Amino acid sequence: MSVTLADVEEAAACLKGVAHRTPVMESSTLSSLADKHLYFKCENFQRVGAFKFRGACNAIKHLPKDQMANGVVTHSSGNHAQALALAAKLNGIPAHIVMPKGSPAVKVNAVKEYGGMVHFCEPNQAAREATCDSIAAETNAVFVHPYNNPYIIAGQGTAALELLHDVGELDAIVAPVGGGGLLSGTVVAAKAIHPGIRIFGAEPVNADDAQRSLQSGERITSHASPPDTVCDGLKTVLGDQTWPIIKDGVESIITVTEAEIMEAMQLVYERMKLVIEPSSATAIAAVLSPTFKAMKDIKRVGIIISGGNVDLAKLNWLPLK
Amino acid sequence: MSVTLADVEEAAACLKGVAHRTPVMESSTLSSLADKHLYFKCENFQRVGAFKFRGACNAIKHLPKDQMANGVVTHSSGNHAQALALAAKLNGIPAHIVMPKGSPAVKVNAVKEYGGMVHFCEPNQAAREATCDSIAAETNAVFVHPYNNPYIIAGQGTAALELLHDVGELDAIVAPVGGGGLLSGTVVAAKAIHPGIRIFGAEPVNADDAQRSLQSGERITSHASPPDTVCDGLKTVLGDQTWPIIKDGVESIITVTEAEIMEAMQLVYERMKLVIEPSSATAIAAVLSPTFKAMKDIKRVGIIISGGNVDLAKLNWLPLK
Repeated sequence: MSVTLADVEEAAACLKGVAHRTPVMESSTLSSLADKHLYFKCENFQRVGAFKFRGACNAIKHLPKDQMANGVVTHSSGNHAQALALAAKLNGIPAHIVMPKGSPAVKVNAVKEYGGMVHFCEPNQAAREATCDSIAAETNAVFVHPYNNPYIIAGQGTAALELLHDVGELDAIVAPVGGGGLLSGTVVAAKAIHPGIRIFGAEPVNADDAQRSLQSGERITSHASPPDTVCDGLKTVLGDQTWPIIKDGVESIITVTEAEIMEAMQLVYERMKLVIEPSSATAIAAVLSPTFKAMKDIKRVGIIISGGNVDLAKLNWLPLK
Repeated sequence: MSVTLADVEEAAACLKGVAHRTPVMESSTLSSLADKHLYFKCENFQRVGAFKFRGACNAIKHLPKDQMANGVVTHSSGNHAQALALAAKLNGIPAHIVMPKGSPAVKVNAVKEYGGMVHFCEPNQAAREATCDSIAAETNAVFVHPYNNPYIIAGQGTAALELLHDVGELDAIVAPVGGGGLLSGTVVAAKAIHPGIRIFGAEPVNADDAQRSLQSGERITSHASPPDTVCDGLKTVLGDQTWPIIKDGVESIITVTEAEIMEAMQLVYERMKLVIEPSSATAIAAVLSPTFKAMKDIKRVGIIISGGNVDLAKLNWLPLK
């Protein structure tokens, strides 16, 4: 199934009254630093604190009617786990969440608070998938992938849909890219509404599979070694459903260093008074990079602030300047 | 001069298009914890990151015409200094800011960035006042007190005016209290609009002059020793112009511990994704206190989030729960 604007619009209808219609914020300081007019779509204010709730909700709304009651299963220790747990709860169906043994208690508890049933597995990809498979076989729960799923992609695209509705035409949108659900959804929505709009991804240089994929024209399906980045949500690689959309619709992926990510993150805390997670800061850092600033014909830029879930005590805060 | 609703409304007219009309936010998590419906007036999004810009702007707009060009002078190392510097700059007049020697470079630089002229003095109250006096004598600049000034009080009252306009009638409003500019302005605006509304102050137990003043009926004019609190903005004592308004219009002052302040602050970061300063967290902590929760007839509560200027690297972040 290819994903179209109609799918995104249909997702938006499903999310109405369920997901928050998050505000778009502006900052004269950041706009001035970027030398462009920036519009920030604040998914850190979304339910569960991240855009992931959009896709999870849309995926559940589209479960085959006769399978709905069996519930859903996924493997995730991040925002998708919480998003799917809450979306399932709101629909009165069970959510089985497979998490690696040794996951931080705070993440396990968050899933449980939203009513998810946590199943532990060995901390490797094979064990995650095998555990999901066996739960699905036992309960008939439907597997909901965190990004490689057309309903997830369409759901995540609703953020860009709302952004463009609220601020009108933009020259560009920049979104972080991990598995590519948010970025591909953004492409689908924005390019259909304004074909001339330019879409950019932002990712840590230490997890640059999307940039290398786009440059080589071939999807990179694994990292050589586990990516060393503070952006937990961006360690995954592109999926075979998000990749073709990104390949066709994304102009380039801008990579940023860990230091640039932390600086951009703290700038948003200090000047915009917003709590964002490091993954979101990649998009801010990208917009502040010399590469992006050099694109003088880009004046009005949307940035998707993907989420605000972060362990404040674990961050290396920089001294005030 | 007594301050009236008309003064607050006139201040609001002066601030239109100059100060931000800050949003009111809600949080189902915090409302649930407080067992009341909470409305947060987000002055952390105000220019210079705090409500102080309202009063400073209004005071400058009301300078005698023939003295306007001489500019303004004040002593402050906090939000009032930045607010007055920016308000002066926007009106094209000089701002002389007296700061104690040894003030953090970041605060000095912030004032300079807004165009303020910084004058250093010995770090004691007498030196601050003497330096202000000598600058005023030399330049004819008008002294603008951070809170003990009717135009400052009226300006700060515009936050409550907007809050009530946006959310309708409330049972109570809670605001932090230091010198009392924000709290007295809130009384003036809110009590005139809804005479039955109940107004509460919130302050650190380690800087409880307002509570002791209200309990004894006599304004306490100094602390026995320098207050030991993370809330820089709440170390001052009530002024003789803010005190009568607070005495008449505030039901009680709720005091909170340093631990309660930090917990409430972090709760707002983690659940509302807002960066607030510790002074603002006193009002959140007060609303979450057993004392306040016991007032079951109070259901709809406005909270003034006074500002978001904080040195993130200096906070003792608590581990995630």
